[in-house]
Amino acid sequence: MRLLFLGDVVGRSGRDALTAKLPGLRASLRADLVVVNGENASHGFGLAPDMARAFLAAGADVITLGNHAWDRKEIIPFLETEPRVIRPANFPPGTPGRGAVVVDVPGNRRALVVNVMGRLFMDALDDPFRAVQAELQRHRLGQTIHAAVIDVHAEATSEKYAFGHSFDGLASLVIGTHTHTPTADHQILAGGTAYQSDAGMCGDYDSVIGMQKGGAALRFWRKMPGEKLAPAEGEATLCGLFVETDDATGLALGVAPVRLGGRLSQAMPRV
Amino acid sequence: MRLLFLGDVVGRSGRDALTAKLPGLRASLRADLVVVNGENASHGFGLAPDMARAFLAAGADVITLGNHAWDRKEIIPFLETEPRVIRPANFPPGTPGRGAVVVDVPGNRRALVVNVMGRLFMDALDDPFRAVQAELQRHRLGQTIHAAVIDVHAEATSEKYAFGHSFDGLASLVIGTHTHTPTADHQILAGGTAYQSDAGMCGDYDSVIGMQKGGAALRFWRKMPGEKLAPAEGEATLCGLFVETDDATGLALGVAPVRLGGRLSQAMPRV
Amino acid sequence: MRLLFLGDVVGRSGRDALTAKLPGLRASLRADLVVVNGENASHGFGLAPDMARAFLAAGADVITLGNHAWDRKEIIPFLETEPRVIRPANFPPGTPGRGAVVVDVPGNRRALVVNVMGRLFMDALDDPFRAVQAELQRHRLGQTIHAAVIDVHAEATSEKYAFGHSFDGLASLVIGTHTHTPTADHQILAGGTAYQSDAGMCGDYDSVIGMQKGGAALRFWRKMPGEKLAPAEGEATLCGLFVETDDATGLALGVAPVRLGGRLSQAMPRV
Amino acid sequence: MRLLFLGDVVGRSGRDALTAKLPGLRASLRADLVVVNGENASHGFGLAPDMARAFLAAGADVITLGNHAWDRKEIIPFLETEPRVIRPANFPPGTPGRGAVVVDVPGNRRALVVNVMGRLFMDALDDPFRAVQAELQRHRLGQTIHAAVIDVHAEATSEKYAFGHSFDGLASLVIGTHTHTPTADHQILAGGTAYQSDAGMCGDYDSVIGMQKGGAALRFWRKMPGEKLAPAEGEATLCGLFVETDDATGLALGVAPVRLGGRLSQAMPRV
Ligand SMILES: [Fe+2]
Ligand SMILES: [Fe+2]
Ligand SMILES: [Fe+2]
Ligand SMILES: [Fe+2]
Ligand SMILES: [Fe+2]
Ligand SMILES: [Fe+2]
Ligand SMILES: [Fe+2]
Ligand SMILES: [Fe+2]
Repeated sequence: MRLLFLGDVVGRSGRDALTAKLPGLRASLRADLVVVNGENASHGFGLAPDMARAFLAAGADVITLGNHAWDRKEIIPFLETEPRVIRPANFPPGTPGRGAVVVDVPGNRRALVVNVMGRLFMDALDDPFRAVQAELQRHRLGQTIHAAVIDVHAEATSEKYAFGHSFDGLASLVIGTHTHTPTADHQILAGGTAYQSDAGMCGDYDSVIGMQKGGAALRFWRKMPGEKLAPAEGEATLCGLFVETDDATGLALGVAPVRLGGRLSQAMPRV
Repeated sequence: MRLLFLGDVVGRSGRDALTAKLPGLRASLRADLVVVNGENASHGFGLAPDMARAFLAAGADVITLGNHAWDRKEIIPFLETEPRVIRPANFPPGTPGRGAVVVDVPGNRRALVVNVMGRLFMDALDDPFRAVQAELQRHRLGQTIHAAVIDVHAEATSEKYAFGHSFDGLASLVIGTHTHTPTADHQILAGGTAYQSDAGMCGDYDSVIGMQKGGAALRFWRKMPGEKLAPAEGEATLCGLFVETDDATGLALGVAPVRLGGRLSQAMPRV
Repeated sequence: MRLLFLGDVVGRSGRDALTAKLPGLRASLRADLVVVNGENASHGFGLAPDMARAFLAAGADVITLGNHAWDRKEIIPFLETEPRVIRPANFPPGTPGRGAVVVDVPGNRRALVVNVMGRLFMDALDDPFRAVQAELQRHRLGQTIHAAVIDVHAEATSEKYAFGHSFDGLASLVIGTHTHTPTADHQILAGGTAYQSDAGMCGDYDSVIGMQKGGAALRFWRKMPGEKLAPAEGEATLCGLFVETDDATGLALGVAPVRLGGRLSQAMPRV
Repeated sequence: MRLLFLGDVVGRSGRDALTAKLPGLRASLRADLVVVNGENASHGFGLAPDMARAFLAAGADVITLGNHAWDRKEIIPFLETEPRVIRPANFPPGTPGRGAVVVDVPGNRRALVVNVMGRLFMDALDDPFRAVQAELQRHRLGQTIHAAVIDVHAEATSEKYAFGHSFDGLASLVIGTHTHTPTADHQILAGGTAYQSDAGMCGDYDSVIGMQKGGAALRFWRKMPGEKLAPAEGEATLCGLFVETDDATGLALGVAPVRLGGRLSQAMPRV
């Protein structure tokens, strides 16, 4: 299976780049499954239903979220009707929405996508490791599902690597989001799972993690609330990872970074 | 000036790779200044004086530290005698050692190196932004010094980008350390300063940020103290950044990632 | 039922005061159930089995723990053989020991004691609210058990009050530990549950939360590891709370602070 | 000198109790100096200028603030014109307002009041210990000033005790605020400084630290943003500490808690 994962879409710059370029990117990579983290699409804070619809229309199969999941209230009823938009699985029971979804993939295949939130330097949710374990145990990789993608929305690289190794051999891809910075440590772990600590964002990198740099930097100098942060408006770099997997095992055969447009060095898998 | 920065050296694997490969790397890159973060050299925790000497002998001009600065007590008197080993500048007054150093560079040039520690999700040190500002104000980039390198030892990408933009145009390079994961966001900022959120480590990437993966991952599942962590022993990837600067301005002309050896995708500047 | 709860016993000073005074205190208060938090008994860090035995011999019916539960490794096998020593209930499945115990009380009565750890500004354990809820749902207060004591080992007063109100009417006493400072907010909540944000410690209050003041205060001035902290050795104040409950409902009829010995203002319930 | 310190005034309940009772309390205690923390006066978040004026009119000599200092924007220009309202001293240079004030006290005396914010589990401000030291070094206790009151707005009891001992003998009173819970550890430290870890709030204690208990408790169960918190509206308990000092030394002769009205056990110094 050919998987494309793109990190946190930030603001209009990120949305515009995604909707403009994803159709072509999907086609040129002949991607079977596209997963996009959308938690910052709405002016940096949350995801509005119409944005989710636009991402799905542009070629996303699944949209994941994170700590900004609830910033736009309209997402709450929307999550109940649109299973392809998922929020971290380790919210407590009773939380709206779902933390995982199985989607059909051309060729009579199925893929599981799980979204989970780390706890180191983040809010105290339920155990994300047991949450992922529980989702994976509902399926058999290579049999009932042909790929499993885990979006680990987390701050600390230690926690992300712990996820990678904990589920190495049990998932197709463990990929981090949330830091809005792509890491260059993409690899196939010892057990066959593709891994990258952070996908990076789909946003303007002349910024402080997607927000306008002046005001955002000032917050570190002045310790009082300042003006509201707004997303940077320069051209976005779409950042993510492309993984090719073996349907018989669900494990990774190859992995290559994607960085398209904007300021960052460009990277595109050889197809 | 041709600058090479290498991130946190972790354990024997990192030390061996550094001392074996740095002489050749320095030569092939024709580097004028080499800065290495050494805070995890000693079994993952701190830097022993003999290791510092070995790094200097292998071609490091300056060694920076971080939150693990004091893990090996012998470093304290050593810092007083060896100005080329620096610790974060924003420790309170009275702390042993120095947070910055100016070193001579061939061609009658001088380079400032500053080490500073972030505060987001880290210990509450003095204001790192004012600390860097104070160091930079002692010099004139392009006149009394020809390059200025800032090692921002920090967890959060937001804080690191805030550093980059705050000192954009005032330093040759702002580069992060501490997450032990190289980022792929190397760029020259709008004002001419080279930037990368994290240099990555010089260590084995089949690990949890350099430590053996089994025990380190288990800590996220079991919430009680486990066995002592030990560094992973596979081949290290040397990770860092190469920057070419204009001596007349001290600003960056080009920037290219370095990833040499071990598991990660290889990257080497075209010289 | 007449309940006495005493907060974190710190070091030799705390142990000596407890074993010397608890027999008399228990007698004079005609206490039916005595619960003591013992997480700092061993030089400030953990509880050794012989100390636990001494506390039980001196009149404790149940000993609770906290974030220092595992500091003395010998406690791990001991917890399996001594159900009256409990650790926070919200450690993940598979953790040694138990988080709750039901003990017999004279007069053919039974009392539940639950230990739980907060998460605000503390380690990311399982949800402590659901953990307490699960323990309480195994029993019927006023029927299968005649009293229920919840030791909330937590940092933040907001989380402690949230516990109090969440279980108001469902427990006899919700009492905080961990800050080593007695609060003066003892009250019977609207639903009949006795509450105090923190029991305080059984330790020397001429100290920094039980540890010698010089070295402990210095840590806030110098940001590097200092000498190992040791418990203060002056006379301890035994700190805690006395609650009288109605066996038919398990709810509180009266509540009064206990502060005995040492530097703090003395408080003793009128019996 | 006869000092009265009252902790964080929360919402209308706290404001009403303060303005109604402070005149009588001041008179009956024959207080020479009254300091009130006002950071939560405005619906729990910040202090409006008219509230500050009402507190001063009711008998407060100085009003201190904390992490909520800036929640009401109108306070910023007001701080420039009203030196008796101070904010934590360890904000960075350039922050509006002042962190200390010297006020005249009847009998030709002067008193220094300093407000400072802790850093443990709080935002990364400048070093609060050096900030207090700097303020104290501008004066001579017992000579140029006759009393010195330090409001340590902080979360952790360890940091508060470290303040107490660090400035023991150099201040009349070191008193904590911010947890909204009065502690029962009032004492005169070895060097003569009065100390209490937290003054408690002036607010309704049938609440979660002053806010309505239902919604505030729910936030610990549900991990998504809920309704906006509002202050509890029951009768407030005025909480604080009364200290009598020796003008010749500025040190404490006696210390007694104050808890007046509302749900908490009542405490009033014998005058
Ligand atoms: Fe996020
Ligand atoms: Fe994000
Ligand atoms: Fe570090
Ligand atoms: Fe490091
Ligand atoms: Fe504790
Ligand atoms: Fe404790
Ligand atoms: Fe407050
Ligand atoms: Fe506060």
